[in-house]
Amino acid sequence: MTARQTDARRRHDPAVRGFASDNYAGAHPEVLAALALANGGHQVAYGEDEYTEALQRTIRSHFGQTAEAFPVFNGTGANVVALQAMTDRWGAVICADSAHIHVDECGAPERVGGLKLLTVPTEDGKLTPELIDREAYGWDDEHRAMPQVVSITQNTELGTVYTPDEVRAICEHAHERNMLVHLDGSRIANAAASLDVPMRAFTNAVGVDVLSLGGTKNGALFGEAVVVVNPDAVRAMKHVRKMSMQLASKMRFISVQLEALLTRDLWLRNARHANSMAQRLAAGVREVDGVEILYPVQANAVFARLPHDVTERLQKRYRFYFWDEAAGDVRWMCSFDTTEEDVDGMLAALREEMGR
Amino acid sequence: MTARQTDARRRHDPAVRGFASDNYAGAHPEVLAALALANGGHQVAYGEDEYTEALQRTIRSHFGQTAEAFPVFNGTGANVVALQAMTDRWGAVICADSAHIHVDECGAPERVGGLKLLTVPTEDGKLTPELIDREAYGWDDEHRAMPQVVSITQNTELGTVYTPDEVRAICEHAHERNMLVHLDGSRIANAAASLDVPMRAFTNAVGVDVLSLGGTKNGALFGEAVVVVNPDAVRAMKHVRKMSMQLASKMRFISVQLEALLTRDLWLRNARHANSMAQRLAAGVREVDGVEILYPVQANAVFARLPHDVTERLQKRYRFYFWDEAAGDVRWMCSFDTTEEDVDGMLAALREEMGR
Amino acid sequence: MTARQTDARRRHDPAVRGFASDNYAGAHPEVLAALALANGGHQVAYGEDEYTEALQRTIRSHFGQTAEAFPVFNGTGANVVALQAMTDRWGAVICADSAHIHVDECGAPERVGGLKLLTVPTEDGKLTPELIDREAYGWDDEHRAMPQVVSITQNTELGTVYTPDEVRAICEHAHERNMLVHLDGSRIANAAASLDVPMRAFTNAVGVDVLSLGGTKNGALFGEAVVVVNPDAVRAMKHVRKMSMQLASKMRFISVQLEALLTRDLWLRNARHANSMAQRLAAGVREVDGVEILYPVQANAVFARLPHDVTERLQKRYRFYFWDEAAGDVRWMCSFDTTEEDVDGMLAALREEMGR
Amino acid sequence: MTARQTDARRRHDPAVRGFASDNYAGAHPEVLAALALANGGHQVAYGEDEYTEALQRTIRSHFGQTAEAFPVFNGTGANVVALQAMTDRWGAVICADSAHIHVDECGAPERVGGLKLLTVPTEDGKLTPELIDREAYGWDDEHRAMPQVVSITQNTELGTVYTPDEVRAICEHAHERNMLVHLDGSRIANAAASLDVPMRAFTNAVGVDVLSLGGTKNGALFGEAVVVVNPDAVRAMKHVRKMSMQLASKMRFISVQLEALLTRDLWLRNARHANSMAQRLAAGVREVDGVEILYPVQANAVFARLPHDVTERLQKRYRFYFWDEAAGDVRWMCSFDTTEEDVDGMLAALREEMGR
Repeated sequence: MTARQTDARRRHDPAVRGFASDNYAGAHPEVLAALALANGGHQVAYGEDEYTEALQRTIRSHFGQTAEAFPVFNGTGANVVALQAMTDRWGAVICADSAHIHVDECGAPERVGGLKLLTVPTEDGKLTPELIDREAYGWDDEHRAMPQVVSITQNTELGTVYTPDEVRAICEHAHERNMLVHLDGSRIANAAASLDVPMRAFTNAVGVDVLSLGGTKNGALFGEAVVVVNPDAVRAMKHVRKMSMQLASKMRFISVQLEALLTRDLWLRNARHANSMAQRLAAGVREVDGVEILYPVQANAVFARLPHDVTERLQKRYRFYFWDEAAGDVRWMCSFDTTEEDVDGMLAALREEMGR
Repeated sequence: MTARQTDARRRHDPAVRGFASDNYAGAHPEVLAALALANGGHQVAYGEDEYTEALQRTIRSHFGQTAEAFPVFNGTGANVVALQAMTDRWGAVICADSAHIHVDECGAPERVGGLKLLTVPTEDGKLTPELIDREAYGWDDEHRAMPQVVSITQNTELGTVYTPDEVRAICEHAHERNMLVHLDGSRIANAAASLDVPMRAFTNAVGVDVLSLGGTKNGALFGEAVVVVNPDAVRAMKHVRKMSMQLASKMRFISVQLEALLTRDLWLRNARHANSMAQRLAAGVREVDGVEILYPVQANAVFARLPHDVTERLQKRYRFYFWDEAAGDVRWMCSFDTTEEDVDGMLAALREEMGR
Repeated sequence: MTARQTDARRRHDPAVRGFASDNYAGAHPEVLAALALANGGHQVAYGEDEYTEALQRTIRSHFGQTAEAFPVFNGTGANVVALQAMTDRWGAVICADSAHIHVDECGAPERVGGLKLLTVPTEDGKLTPELIDREAYGWDDEHRAMPQVVSITQNTELGTVYTPDEVRAICEHAHERNMLVHLDGSRIANAAASLDVPMRAFTNAVGVDVLSLGGTKNGALFGEAVVVVNPDAVRAMKHVRKMSMQLASKMRFISVQLEALLTRDLWLRNARHANSMAQRLAAGVREVDGVEILYPVQANAVFARLPHDVTERLQKRYRFYFWDEAAGDVRWMCSFDTTEEDVDGMLAALREEMGR
Repeated sequence: MTARQTDARRRHDPAVRGFASDNYAGAHPEVLAALALANGGHQVAYGEDEYTEALQRTIRSHFGQTAEAFPVFNGTGANVVALQAMTDRWGAVICADSAHIHVDECGAPERVGGLKLLTVPTEDGKLTPELIDREAYGWDDEHRAMPQVVSITQNTELGTVYTPDEVRAICEHAHERNMLVHLDGSRIANAAASLDVPMRAFTNAVGVDVLSLGGTKNGALFGEAVVVVNPDAVRAMKHVRKMSMQLASKMRFISVQLEALLTRDLWLRNARHANSMAQRLAAGVREVDGVEILYPVQANAVFARLPHDVTERLQKRYRFYFWDEAAGDVRWMCSFDTTEEDVDGMLAALREEMGR
């Protein structure tokens, strides 16, 4: 392929970035390099390849000796596979009413798994033992879907982060009631970076049974894994993954991406960078009169409230979304490839538009 | 990354290939190159990117002006998304009892979509109007799941290929009975190469309503698409894809792979090569006394019957699977990266082991 | 059968009644007599019998000329059959968070129908257009389960009753947004009696599309019906009923019970009586110091808050349930067979236990 | 109610009977009497009543000390509740391709339970260990729905009856492979009468784990029970029954019907009578030239092949169904209320129509 062909087939400007979503970013170059490395020759399909085996060792180094990774395609897949494997047909899952599984998966937990979600309103996206108790009852009552799992998101959909102690309290509370704990870690790397602790500190070390480990938002092309920390918490993971249409035939290509992220700290470098860009952005926003920051900025998201007309003008310059259009709330996401110049440009634009 | 690092992180020998599955192969280098091209910068997530738009144009050039592609992760996903969008809650799907949706998807059609499969035994994996009629009745009978779709596989799981006229007859028969036709084209490229016709010749040109277009076995890392030829045949495709957990956030990376395959004939070159390797293998096998070839070799698969002890010894030299262990039937698959040397080596090994 | 045998086989005291549930009551004698009348000889199974045909005429006299009844076994069955027939695979249902479909059906809507429930907290069990709007958005957003139906309960689980105007406002609001309206009428007779209007006044006359018509709590042994007022609101009702396991083979025995209730005003006599017993009970309770009535008493339920120790002693004398044990809230239900003596006895017991 | 009213409200001629289905019959008078007995007063809803408790004792007398009955509404409900409670999400059920769960339940097993049915063609509706083996494999293969239950029907849909030894062989075969055995006993009474053994002889005594016990076809208005013989074979029966919408609120009215059938041999008297009427019919048919009886007449069904024109004329005189219209096969069912005069009249009509 010549350079000329390359140009003709590149359909976008790789210099343009916005603040809409960490899913708008591409893949980190080290991830692409890893794909090339894993290519060529034949490898056993469906997970018996060398790269998936290597991934298991890496996963154990992060999440303990009992941990096992089950690579899947995407975050919804990871969540719904995990929750099905953790529940019976009659099970229910307690979660925040802002949880991705409740508001952003088009009912996949209900439709694919027949799961009942028991939702609880929260202040900041975080469950607590007290909040869990609003739905944690009635296990013997056949009229009630049986609460079997508590699912929390780390970091939350609102950009807030549970401390290890907060997760521990939830796990203890759930386990005392014979419930298991699932952690939706679509942005787990950002949470670890924010807390400055290893991922284990708020997962296996404090009682989380199963987690969804995000790769896509952290710099992969695609690819997540269900990480089973407690083998007793699940059954028939391989069957559940397959029947949920989340079994990759050429699995080496998911595994090697996760491996590329999880070794040599690429996962952490990417997350730290995204978080620091969010801090830079938040710091700048705080200096702009008339713009309110809505939640503690603990990961790579900044939620703010600003006038509608400003938002509309600003969206023509940088892509981002309303979070609650009626209230005027917006969400700005930073990703591994957000630059200081991107942030400073955004802040300049915000100041300009607020000043009109 | 230095060469030294490269070596250390490559965990397999790219020179080793077998005959187990076209899923054991990696990705074609042009596909990897395309991924690199699509990387960098921000692109709208979930399918509003430039690469998915370009893919639509390519798809229309192959499947007609009404065609639309819905990229998904894998073949089971493509099939189950398509069949859900084509049926109502009370619908049933008529298929061969050898169909992948029936025997190889762990019940995903039933579990994810609540679909009832009405299966028919076939000689060679191919349905006919007569065979369809065994299950095509009782639309008004509430006791019976309502047959709404006929699903055929091209090429079939047994390596046989429908002629365009055979597909046309099925489509006419189905449409006269108000049923739609789905084509599972996990290996559609091999079928087109075998027939030496464009893919349209046995899809939109003869009445197929919706197809699952395979990319993975044709040389992608991963990625397929539901191609809706007849827009009236489906409803709410985007919702169905999302709730079936088959919506890729960074969709550009599926679309650009399919684009790389479907432009400049890479799809056809790969398929022709795989098919010709299967022909070379079959020709050689026919010269070996005591080995029987089981079905017409029309695509990239060779099915054969040979003595158990030979199979066992041969499997130590080349990886491949039993198809029916009790009968002694094996399946040898060729892929886009199978070489003449691979085939000749396999044949030499077969002759040796048969001669012992 | 001799009287002696009769006695030996009667296992309960027909003179004992409590306030636990209108499901604790038996059947009205006229209903039993109707069953005997419909017995004998052969009648076509699965709904083509004379009694089901007669029921259709009666249903049309109540709910208008387009109405059609689909008898089913129980209330959960009626609700889940109706909601499935009103939605697509990707649909969601907006309801109060106190709705029976959400809290009392063990997840049947989710598990049987893959339905996503979008729940809204309410003051008194009643939805309003404003409350509906909390979840009525995002129809084009594939990440969100598509709101297709608003489901209200009349009377509500809290014993409150929507006025016809309130239902009309909900229907108009829903229809303007292309949503349909389902009414869970498990206790519809009590609502009509309370409002002193025909059932049509708050169903077909004001825009309700489909309702679940309760028979069991109104004096049947078992049996409800999905009443489709707007034929365009559903599809394939017969198939949906069958595949939901709610098709009675000897349907004449459901139909004749509903017929017995709905002709000659038995439904209304039963409901009026139950409601008036609740009024008598509420009036008496209001005179007891220290007992608080929690919601307007508009149908056959009285919710009250009283000291735990009183509840415990009182439950030994009359069977009834806690509604919210932590808060000390209890529910007293009256039924068609509750007598003035039952109520007065209960009040006397309450006064006694409060006075200790 | 006066006699005159009675007449006016009776909508059918109780003297007319046909041979269409044992579901066309009404209820046995002793069953109606039992209903009246159980009526009046309050009984705890949802199964904690005296009649359900009494039923448990009766069930244990029939099926052994570990047996427990879970009353449900209908046969499809019994089957799908049982099979869900016996399987995991990833389970599959091996059954004859003539099984009611496969051909007559509109896909309820798949849609309600996500169950995959693995069907086997049979000669006469009866599975054997050899036939089971066609689908009993691949438990560790995640691509294959996991066979967890073998479901047989006694008597079969073709009117044939398994001997106790045949059932024992199936149970041993299944158990050796870690599969459970479910028996669909929609007409279990007819099978017991045919074999002249107690029901236990071909259920708990030979290894059946769970059965669906039919009441409706045996003389109830409605009502069946899942009978769990082996408590280890199921989980969470009460939750599964409720979420499958098969929990009756006024359960006493199902239980007392089953009790009325199962005590004092009403079940057996009814079944013996129906069977003997089928024998009388078959004997008469065998004397008519040109009419072929298709299967051994072992219960209350006679399958025959006769000329189309004869069938059409005969159907105007007695209601019955084609079984296979293309082949000219018809099914004649006898029920507990079929009389000798009914049979003789039918035979006379058959002779007449054949003689034209």
